Amino acid sequence: MHTPSDDADRQRDAGSVPSPAVRHVSLNLNVRGMGPSATLAVKALCRARVDRGERVFDFGLGQSPFPVPAPVVEALRLAAKEKDYLPVEGLPLLREAVAAFHRREDGMEARPDGVLVGPGSKELMFLLQIAYYGEIILRSPCWVSYLPQAQIVGRRNTLIPTQFDAGWKITPALLEETLTAANDHGRPRLLILNYPANPTGHTYTAEDLQGLAEVARKFELILLSDEIYAQTHFTDEHVSIARYYPERTIVSSGLSKWCGAGGWRLGTFCFPPELDWLRAAMAAVASETYTSVCAPIQYAAVQAFRGGAEIEHYLSRTRRILASLSAQCVDRIRAGGIRVHPSTGAFYLFPDFTPLAPRLAARGIHDSTTLCQRLLEATGVAILPGAAFGRPAEELTARLSYVDFDGAAAIEASARPEADIDAVVQRHCHRVLEGVDRLTDWASADRA
Amino acid sequence: MHTPSDDADRQRDAGSVPSPAVRHVSLNLNVRGMGPSATLAVKALCRARVDRGERVFDFGLGQSPFPVPAPVVEALRLAAKEKDYLPVEGLPLLREAVAAFHRREDGMEARPDGVLVGPGSKELMFLLQIAYYGEIILRSPCWVSYLPQAQIVGRRNTLIPTQFDAGWKITPALLEETLTAANDHGRPRLLILNYPANPTGHTYTAEDLQGLAEVARKFELILLSDEIYAQTHFTDEHVSIARYYPERTIVSSGLSKWCGAGGWRLGTFCFPPELDWLRAAMAAVASETYTSVCAPIQYAAVQAFRGGAEIEHYLSRTRRILASLSAQCVDRIRAGGIRVHPSTGAFYLFPDFTPLAPRLAARGIHDSTTLCQRLLEATGVAILPGAAFGRPAEELTARLSYVDFDGAAAIEASARPEADIDAVVQRHCHRVLEGVDRLTDWASADRA
Repeated sequence: MHTPSDDADRQRDAGSVPSPAVRHVSLNLNVRGMGPSATLAVKALCRARVDRGERVFDFGLGQSPFPVPAPVVEALRLAAKEKDYLPVEGLPLLREAVAAFHRREDGMEARPDGVLVGPGSKELMFLLQIAYYGEIILRSPCWVSYLPQAQIVGRRNTLIPTQFDAGWKITPALLEETLTAANDHGRPRLLILNYPANPTGHTYTAEDLQGLAEVARKFELILLSDEIYAQTHFTDEHVSIARYYPERTIVSSGLSKWCGAGGWRLGTFCFPPELDWLRAAMAAVASETYTSVCAPIQYAAVQAFRGGAEIEHYLSRTRRILASLSAQCVDRIRAGGIRVHPSTGAFYLFPDFTPLAPRLAARGIHDSTTLCQRLLEATGVAILPGAAFGRPAEELTARLSYVDFDGAAAIEASARPEADIDAVVQRHCHRVLEGVDRLTDWASADRA
Repeated sequence: MHTPSDDADRQRDAGSVPSPAVRHVSLNLNVRGMGPSATLAVKALCRARVDRGERVFDFGLGQSPFPVPAPVVEALRLAAKEKDYLPVEGLPLLREAVAAFHRREDGMEARPDGVLVGPGSKELMFLLQIAYYGEIILRSPCWVSYLPQAQIVGRRNTLIPTQFDAGWKITPALLEETLTAANDHGRPRLLILNYPANPTGHTYTAEDLQGLAEVARKFELILLSDEIYAQTHFTDEHVSIARYYPERTIVSSGLSKWCGAGGWRLGTFCFPPELDWLRAAMAAVASETYTSVCAPIQYAAVQAFRGGAEIEHYLSRTRRILASLSAQCVDRIRAGGIRVHPSTGAFYLFPDFTPLAPRLAARGIHDSTTLCQRLLEATGVAILPGAAFGRPAEELTARLSYVDFDGAAAIEASARPEADIDAVVQRHCHRVLEGVDRLTDWASADRA
């Protein structure tokens, strides 16, 4: 969840995937041949450009551009000597802080005993798929590691395709239709929701969530609500579905996105009492695999989840920067004749180049993968094809991550009381805006 | 591997394992009902004692008693701001340091590209079992997480039982006999060796390893050589089997044991070029699960694997302390009529109470689990039953981990040039020696 799998793909060395020519290769068929993905192909092209000394506008990476807040870094320094194995479910102080965080931020009835701490919520998601026996229901477009995880574990999955016109949202009607179509009311199923969303940047309203909760209750779904981007909601109005479907919703969070600490690898799941059996089974698997999360990081995370004035100030500045930058990108993209929904959180846009399809087709571009490769070659702008997020190959969508700027400098500039946030963004995020202009100029051009 | 699974069991909340009475429980049958283990039962008894204000001699935990070396802690402090996702296979600087470490310490042809860094070598072992399709061959007694991992993944495994009289070693003849018995020469198989060994504290000689390497080559085994305790070898004479079977041996190490940093969660696998296909497949799975290891920890680990005078000094002091303490424990255990082999590394002894079997039987003790429970109740000494390590239930063996002392104080005392190491140990590890005396007094008593 947290680490968009493009990040993972960027890191994966699966280019060296086992060749059939190698002797003595005995691999799990669920793993054999994994990758290289479209995102890796883009990465390779990026590297080649950099090696040639050419510019790259890196809108592929799903990493926060901001530094870890100073009090959290200081807490890590103070905890550097902590060396003991911690309890598999997490440091008790941290479990308390995470529960308090969800009570404070989301109005949930969160309990310390319901919290499970893992080395990234992506790993927790994997444990969930190992422990839980049931079908996985996902939205398309979806974050790119959900599907490979289901493949590794061998779990059945169903994608619910959403549309531009519906703002890429799963509607209650669409959900009900999908669940009913299987004609198997009692099937154990896990629905994963993610909002503010990767890769679309949209979120759900309270009304949307109430409707989805009703359907979930009717089908007794287990719901994994991936809210890792909650604190990036531009107007700080994130609402959790746990309010409306508390009895079977697991809420996921972590340090990777709102706290700028993707590389620290700490994610959290918060379970209701009704799902303690699932938490216990995941903890049993965790005890035989990663054992516990890095101790110094857990002590530092206590500081992050407790929050406080300095962290609030940090968050409010990061939100203003992202909101302004996102809006400026949207204006420019639309001016280029590409359709796109404004985002309400996270740091993604999911432009749809369909209005330009005839022009693109004239240049031999008929699918999102070719679109992204040609864009990169021509302009140095790297975005990820919709196909990498479960969309049909021929749909001309892509994810644009507007994080290629110096977050520390932008935060500092935005802190001045007289700061005009749009001007700050134009000065400090000019690289992003320039990349978006290159993209639109190239896409809307009449010739190749 | 690294974290003896008793540690994990201590942390696991699997006491809350799903009850059949719970509705809507849909769990993977390979996971359902995991635990609570014998070690958890011992843990519960320990807690009850502590709650009653009674003493506990905790010889159950497999954690280094020593602090993380100062230069490594300082390196973590300096790296506290590192926030980026690192490459899935590890920070390039760290992969270089690990390869150089194995070349320097083990005379291996280690390459940076052959190194895979994970959040504990236990997690890497799990990834290996997921990616590799083949039978897992283990020694009994074996470290307690190997078997549950094979169960979760659904891999077939074979235990090779070893005996007290053979020093708990797998001999080449025994290995060959086991492999031949299957009458399936081409079966893909992974043999796991661990030396210095958990739970027995023994190691293999160069001659032993040459013999095992010959059989491994004959059957084209993949060999996972778990050498996490290599640097604790009391006389610093550890030899890796990678010298004799380089082409298919993976060498495992990490910070948990020799560097005192179990809670930091960093393990390493070092692959030969012939197994790059397996490393790549594991990296592909890692990219969809834990993504990468905590960035600040990886920077700090560079310092640890590079070594240097201060770390060498630390290691030589920890070895002297462990060697003296181990020898003193052995003398006392033997004096009580219990048989035990001296250890040559790690921090474990694996006493065999068989000579006292008649006396124990007279007190109603016929198996290792009862032995350990009764011992704890009567004396406050917690050791782990042989049954938890794959031994037959009725065999009166147990693992004793002699780490219940203040390692920092012991290191400091041993640093004085005039220090008599045996006297230092008697002063600083008196708790361990007192516990061992209680154990032998109780076991050799004529009455209940």
